[in-house]
Amino acid sequence: MRITVCCTDTKADPWLAGLRAAFPSATVENWAPGAAAADYAVVWAPPQQFLDEQPQLKALFNIGAGVDALMKMRLPAGAAVVRLDDAGMSVQMAEYVSHAVIRHFREFDGYEADVQQGKWSFRKPRMRADFPVGVMGLGVLGQRVARTLLQFDFPVRGWSRSAKTVEGVRCFAGEEGFEAFLAATRILVCLLPLTPDTEGIMNRQTLSRLMPGGYVINVARGGHLVEDDLLALVDSGHLAGAMLDVFRTEPLPAGHAFWQHPKISVTPHTSARTLREESIAQIAGKIAALESGQPIATLAGVVDLNKRY
Amino acid sequence: MRITVCCTDTKADPWLAGLRAAFPSATVENWAPGAAAADYAVVWAPPQQFLDEQPQLKALFNIGAGVDALMKMRLPAGAAVVRLDDAGMSVQMAEYVSHAVIRHFREFDGYEADVQQGKWSFRKPRMRADFPVGVMGLGVLGQRVARTLLQFDFPVRGWSRSAKTVEGVRCFAGEEGFEAFLAATRILVCLLPLTPDTEGIMNRQTLSRLMPGGYVINVARGGHLVEDDLLALVDSGHLAGAMLDVFRTEPLPAGHAFWQHPKISVTPHTSARTLREESIAQIAGKIAALESGQPIATLAGVVDLNKRY
Repeated sequence: MRITVCCTDTKADPWLAGLRAAFPSATVENWAPGAAAADYAVVWAPPQQFLDEQPQLKALFNIGAGVDALMKMRLPAGAAVVRLDDAGMSVQMAEYVSHAVIRHFREFDGYEADVQQGKWSFRKPRMRADFPVGVMGLGVLGQRVARTLLQFDFPVRGWSRSAKTVEGVRCFAGEEGFEAFLAATRILVCLLPLTPDTEGIMNRQTLSRLMPGGYVINVARGGHLVEDDLLALVDSGHLAGAMLDVFRTEPLPAGHAFWQHPKISVTPHTSARTLREESIAQIAGKIAALESGQPIATLAGVVDLNKRY
Repeated sequence: MRITVCCTDTKADPWLAGLRAAFPSATVENWAPGAAAADYAVVWAPPQQFLDEQPQLKALFNIGAGVDALMKMRLPAGAAVVRLDDAGMSVQMAEYVSHAVIRHFREFDGYEADVQQGKWSFRKPRMRADFPVGVMGLGVLGQRVARTLLQFDFPVRGWSRSAKTVEGVRCFAGEEGFEAFLAATRILVCLLPLTPDTEGIMNRQTLSRLMPGGYVINVARGGHLVEDDLLALVDSGHLAGAMLDVFRTEPLPAGHAFWQHPKISVTPHTSARTLREESIAQIAGKIAALESGQPIATLAGVVDLNKRY
């Protein structure tokens, strides 16, 4: 068995070492043009040349949860695409979103600004019933986030492409449920896959439908949000603000209006980082399963190439 | 039946209105010196004169979870003291502590400072196994906080005066368990009642026993913490910092070292505010139970005057 690692912007050595430890008799190597034909590839943003040179690949293991970049490429015809399935990401997402929701709801930014001025002053407690949180995308990450928010007694709504049931969450589905979902949401959390269907899904029209004082938390992809539309709605006061981890262009370009906006918080795509050990263990487990004859369709995280996620 | 409201620093009218609505045939009045003898009192920091003038009171309902101030006063001999039992406070505590733990663990303060300088930079993800959280005090509030932290997969420890069991939490008890609890804790959360036994429980000696890089979250009472000891340990680097909601003197005096300390975050005693509607409903429910003959010892939140909480 031969496994090739082809990851842009990622140190290859620890991945090579981890996979070699898992499969001592396999050949595990970092890709270079002209490399030998591999059975499996572990990839992050691989060059097209890699994919073109390896038409025999049985599976591509993406070391992230989102495969939108890969879906835009020409893939080996017989290769399954497998994304990370949680692997330590859902708890990070739950943390990031909980922090953002609580910080906004409890006005901790405002308290911090007061304290910086030496001010000891109370704000009127807000009622959590007035702050329903709507989670778009109810996969592994979205469901974990929704369940965590329920722990804080927020009303939680969920929206997904196909109907899903999450205990305690008021679920909406499909295009026909989208408006009702937005109208029942004040804090909007985006955890959707980025596909042609969801590109720009947060725009002037849709964000206008949120409850007044809406707040946007984007932890999916920059492409989900029409950035100028968000800015206009925040500046007009319809939206109270946003906490954004992902952007159309990353790193966020110097001079972008988000950097210093008083109502928009920015983090550098750090909401859920790929945890190397968990990810190697997960991918190695899946390769071992395939080698022992398990059908690939039964693996968690196999991408539906029609749906593109 | 006569109910007297005697609350310093609190608007009496909404409490009077709420209690009158609950008991239309009762006399509900705001206390003034020389007032008629009441059956029940609803109090917050009442003057000693009030207590001295009302020796016949059957019960004092404290509109907060902590009764430390009341325990220092001369109480009517036959009066039970009843504190709020959750009444919407535990979820607020869970929010406050989760926000503080996540913010510290995920270094969101550091990211925010980077962004203010226009810097897009990653920090190495920390392992949550290295950040066990220890909750001191396992009453209604402490247990809710501990259970919420488990949702984020942190190792959680608990410490209480008498042995308790909380699923998923490594529990320690009593003086004999205190050192082991501290040694197994990196983020220390104080939710203890303030009593002569717990006054100054967070001091140089005890805080030194936390794991290196310890972090302190105090949402109980300022009296639990020896403030200068905390400052010394933060400044020496043994502790990474603190998030404090309560102080020896409140409001925190101008010029206090906590105001501008780069590693200490301050909020103005806002971690869990008394929610008026929930509290009135809870107190009215307890008065109705007593009036219907239920023994007072069976009510939730009755203070053990020997333990003082």
